[in-house]
This record gives sequence, C-alpha cells and structure tokens, in this order.
Amino acid sequence: MNKIGKRTLKFCKNIGIVSSAAVVGPKEGEGPLKNEFDKCFNDSILGQNSWEKAESMLQKCAVERALKKCGLRADQIDIIFAGDLLNQCIASSFGLIDFSIPFVGVYGACSTMALSLITAAISIESGAANRAVAVTSSHFCSAERQYRYPLEYGGVRPLTSQWTVTGSGAIVLTEQSGICIEKCTIGKITDYSIKDANNMGAAMAPAAADTIYSYFADTKTMPSDYDMIYTGDLGSVGTELLYNLLIERGVDIRKYHKDCGNMIFDPLKQDVHAGGSGCGCSASVLCSHILSKMRSRQLNNILFCATGALLSPTSTQQGENIPAIAHLVQIRNNI
Amino acid sequence: MNKIGKRTLKFCKNIGIVSSAAVVGPKEGEGPLKNEFDKCFNDSILGQNSWEKAESMLQKCAVERALKKCGLRADQIDIIFAGDLLNQCIASSFGLIDFSIPFVGVYGACSTMALSLITAAISIESGAANRAVAVTSSHFCSAERQYRYPLEYGGVRPLTSQWTVTGSGAIVLTEQSGICIEKCTIGKITDYSIKDANNMGAAMAPAAADTIYSYFADTKTMPSDYDMIYTGDLGSVGTELLYNLLIERGVDIRKYHKDCGNMIFDPLKQDVHAGGSGCGCSASVLCSHILSKMRSRQLNNILFCATGALLSPTSTQQGENIPAIAHLVQIRNNI
Repeated sequence: MNKIGKRTLKFCKNIGIVSSAAVVGPKEGEGPLKNEFDKCFNDSILGQNSWEKAESMLQKCAVERALKKCGLRADQIDIIFAGDLLNQCIASSFGLIDFSIPFVGVYGACSTMALSLITAAISIESGAANRAVAVTSSHFCSAERQYRYPLEYGGVRPLTSQWTVTGSGAIVLTEQSGICIEKCTIGKITDYSIKDANNMGAAMAPAAADTIYSYFADTKTMPSDYDMIYTGDLGSVGTELLYNLLIERGVDIRKYHKDCGNMIFDPLKQDVHAGGSGCGCSASVLCSHILSKMRSRQLNNILFCATGALLSPTSTQQGENIPAIAHLVQIRNNI
Repeated sequence: MNKIGKRTLKFCKNIGIVSSAAVVGPKEGEGPLKNEFDKCFNDSILGQNSWEKAESMLQKCAVERALKKCGLRADQIDIIFAGDLLNQCIASSFGLIDFSIPFVGVYGACSTMALSLITAAISIESGAANRAVAVTSSHFCSAERQYRYPLEYGGVRPLTSQWTVTGSGAIVLTEQSGICIEKCTIGKITDYSIKDANNMGAAMAPAAADTIYSYFADTKTMPSDYDMIYTGDLGSVGTELLYNLLIERGVDIRKYHKDCGNMIFDPLKQDVHAGGSGCGCSASVLCSHILSKMRSRQLNNILFCATGALLSPTSTQQGENIPAIAHLVQIRNNI
C-alpha cells in the first residue's frame, strides 16, 4: 500500500467487504434503526448468567451471522481482529474461542471497529490473510458497572453522558471488487485536557477533528467529495465540538455528516441524554444501516471515523486527563 | 507474505530489527540479566505519583532509547504498536502520547510483545509503514493491585504464582537485512479448563504447545533446526507442562528451550516462586539478552513464543476458565 500525504494509507488491493452483520439489545431494537439490524434480542442478558457473557454472546452471534451470509465456515477465515471495552477484552476472548481462528486482539476503546477493520485490511494487503474478520462489541450493563456504578445503585447520569450501546458488528473481508476499504488514516493519541468522564464526546471530538482534517489534507479532498461522513460515537455534545474544531481549520462537514451515536437512539422517545456510545455503537450502525445503504447504492463513497476515549476508571480516579483517538476508513463501491 | 502449512506466515520482505531497548525496575536490576538491560531504575515509582504512571514512563523510556540507538526521531516512525496489562491499556495510551505517532493498540495479555511485533511486521510487509515500533510493558505494583490485592494487604502468594516483571521492551522495525523477523504464527485462543488465577503457567502452557507444535508442523522443521526456542513467561510450572504436552505430540524442545520467566529472576536468591511474568517480562528479555546474543552471533536463528492468559479479575470472580493464547515469531540473522 502507498502513503498519501503524511498519514493516510491507500490500499493497492481491492479490500472487499464480503458480508456484515449487526446484532443488538432490546433498547437498540426499539430505536430508529430497528429494522436494519440482523437480530434484536428481546432481553439484555441473552440467556447467559452474566452481562459479560451476554456481551461475548453478542460477538459470537455477529460473527456467526456474518459468516453465514457469505457461506463461509470459521475454518476458512485466516485471522480474526477483535476488541471490546471490558477489562482485558474478555468479551472478545470468551466470545470468539469456539471459532478457533487465529486471533489478534486490538484496543482502541470506542474506535475499535475502525481499528479492527484497518488491521484486518492491512493483513489482507500484506498477504497474511486471504479472508479476515473484524468484530467489536459493547454492552450497556457490563460497561456501566465497570466504568461507572453498579446498575442497582441507580446513579443519575448527567446530560452530557452517553448511553453505551448493547450490540456487536462483524465484517468479513477478502480481496474482491465492490464495496471496498480504499484508504485509512490511523489516529494519533490526543489530549485536550478534558477530565470529565461523563463527557466523552468532548474528549473525543479533538481526536476526530485531527484525524478527519489529516485525511482531507493528505488526500487533497473535501467533504463534498463524499456521500456521507460518519463519526463513531461523539453524540450530540461531541458533534457540535467537532463542527467547531473543523470550521476553525476551514473544513465544514455539517452537510455531509452523521454521528452513529446520534443515529441509534431516538433523542425524543429514548432517554439517552447525549446519544449512544461504545464500540458496539459504530460497529452495529456500520454493519447494518451504513453498509446496507452502500449495497443499495444510496451511498457509494463514505468516510467512517470511529472515536475512542482512552481512559480507565483508574486514570479518572487519579485525576488524569482523558486521552482520545480516532481511526478513519474510506469505503467506496468501486463497481 | 505467504502462508506455510495451515497457520504460519512467511514474510517476503526482510523485516529487520533496527534497534531495541529494555528498561526495568530495581528487582529485575538485581537479577541474572542485570548487566544486559539498557536501564535499571533504582526505584519502582520512577519519580511518578502512581504505579500506573510509572509503567507509562517505562514504555516512554524504552521507546526513547530504542529510537536514540538508531538515530531516529519519533516523527520518522509511521506506526507504533503497543499494549500492556492495565485496564483499557492505559500504560500505553498515557506513555506514548508525547511521541505523536499513529497508534495501534493491541492486546494479548503477556503475549503482547509477540503480537505487537507480528502486527508491526505485517504493517511493513504491506507497505503501511516504512518504520514501525513495537512496545509493551508491565509493572509489578500496578498489576498486583489490579489483578490481585493491594500491596498493603500483604497477601501470601502461592508457590505456583509468578511475579509480574516491572519492565518494558521496545523494538524498531524497518525493511533491511540482518536480524529479521522471517516467519510468524498467530495464536488461537485455547481453554484447558484451568481456573486457578494463581497458576497462569498451567493456563498458558497448552496455548504455547499448540502454537509451537503448529509452527513445526507448518514449516516441517524440528527443534534442532533452531539455536534456541524462547517462550514468553510460562515460569517453572508452565515450562514442565509445555514439555509434557509437546512430548505427547512427539516434539522434544528441552535441549533448545528457555523461558523468559525463568531467566529474569534468580530462583535461589530472589523469591519469585514460579518465575517472572507480565508483558514486560518477555519484552525486556527479548530486547536485551536475546537480541544482544543475536547481534554477537551467539544465536542466529531463534523462535520467540510469548504466552498470555486472557482472563480478567471479573471473569475469575465469576468462576470462568482461563483462556490463553501464544503468538510466535521466528527471528533469523540473514547476513
């Protein structure tokens, strides 16, 4: 692959998206995208005995469905790239064990879907894999008790907080024409001195602005060159900040932009405050709504920029800033 | 790159190790390898105000020294691949922020050094990076309080337990001849129903056996074809289990094998029970002792198989098994 400008990479091969699947929980199944997901579970526990195992089950189901759609078996996949928000990424390691596929764990907080896609695409470009899978998940209940409070505590969430999506998205990649990952920009860690762990949007917006601005500068393109620019899960607060940060640098994406965190829940009917978040958020929206619109040719050339806050409860309790990162992929239908 | 056999990958480019650096804490600085590390800190806190920040500082120092050794600046590195054991990998995200290098977070528990090397090498093979850095770390104090008990509690460690190494290792890679990563085998997640979180060696040995056996089968080579086979951090308990598991399958590595967890501390003079562990263990031993022996041509062709236990305190408390993984790289001096 070739470097364009300072940081953007262009694939030489056609890194084709063979199939995708998105599975979500009940709240997501009542939202605006309810008819686009492959499966909406009726309960959040998925028949398991812990929220963590339920999240593992989400990943397993997403991968199973993505494989089934393209008629592949697990043993035909060379490498699986996966990650999640749980400590030590146990949703991935427990969820994917039965597939017995060589496993690369990646971590980019809520940006992980873009990161797993980038690393999977690079593996195909290099020849390391003929077929690769990228998958991530998040779960409201496992995330709440790990990052914030036990659900039973009933803590009041401030209006800037976002709702972790219960969901998973999986994508199968191979070398073929069609809907392809053409370029990517790997994020840098940014720190804008945000310390409020209930305002992830504010922490992540500068990272998104940095990556998106770099992509446009590197490729000498502008927002109007794309059918749509999706960000991961900035939510309503982070989205406004992203607009401001980019306008300061002469880039106005407002006409072409949607944020997955603002799309997955209905802001009027569903009480999620600043929107959805979690690596299952952008993953499940990409693997259903966005790729569906690309298959039907309503969209032909998009940017997908997932954002992640690289904090932990420990770093927050120690009074540290919240570093953030955003990884970007450009996806185009080249047929 | 080309696939050999079922799972092993051979790089087409010369993925050369340009430089490496290892920095460790005071206990490691009193061990058998004390004269081989680039820096042994006199205290475990490294002038920081938390163990977590001390661990971040280890990564920062290791990368700084590896870059200095080869005369490169951070802005000449295309991608940095990093990971650690802390929740949400904060040692990496806080430790590497100042370098402002495009950042790929990877997670493989104590196998992370091999995983970061593999992903970095693939990025060079693909052309995504001309120069890449792989780095990991661990810290006894940050790991103890996260995985087990606060140090102040003074819990008694069982004899099968291992001592998390305070250390970090960093490697700079680019396309050049010399000491090169020639092949790699990406691990699969294994589960041998081990539940004792104080016996990581037992959990990880089956993963190491699976990856090492697969490598030999894929490449049609045998232990005597290599100058040395290093495993990550099985410690004394896991090493015996690995020998048994491989002998059952007709492979005897005993004459050619050392485990980094058994090398870094003196079993007689330093009370570490079953040996060292942590992703800083195999990383610091590889980046000092092992690569030093390759530079002086005492070793010319080695296998480095780092092992990781994919558990979290949550999964252990929920009574789950401990899944494990082992990633392998073959490193050869081709000049």
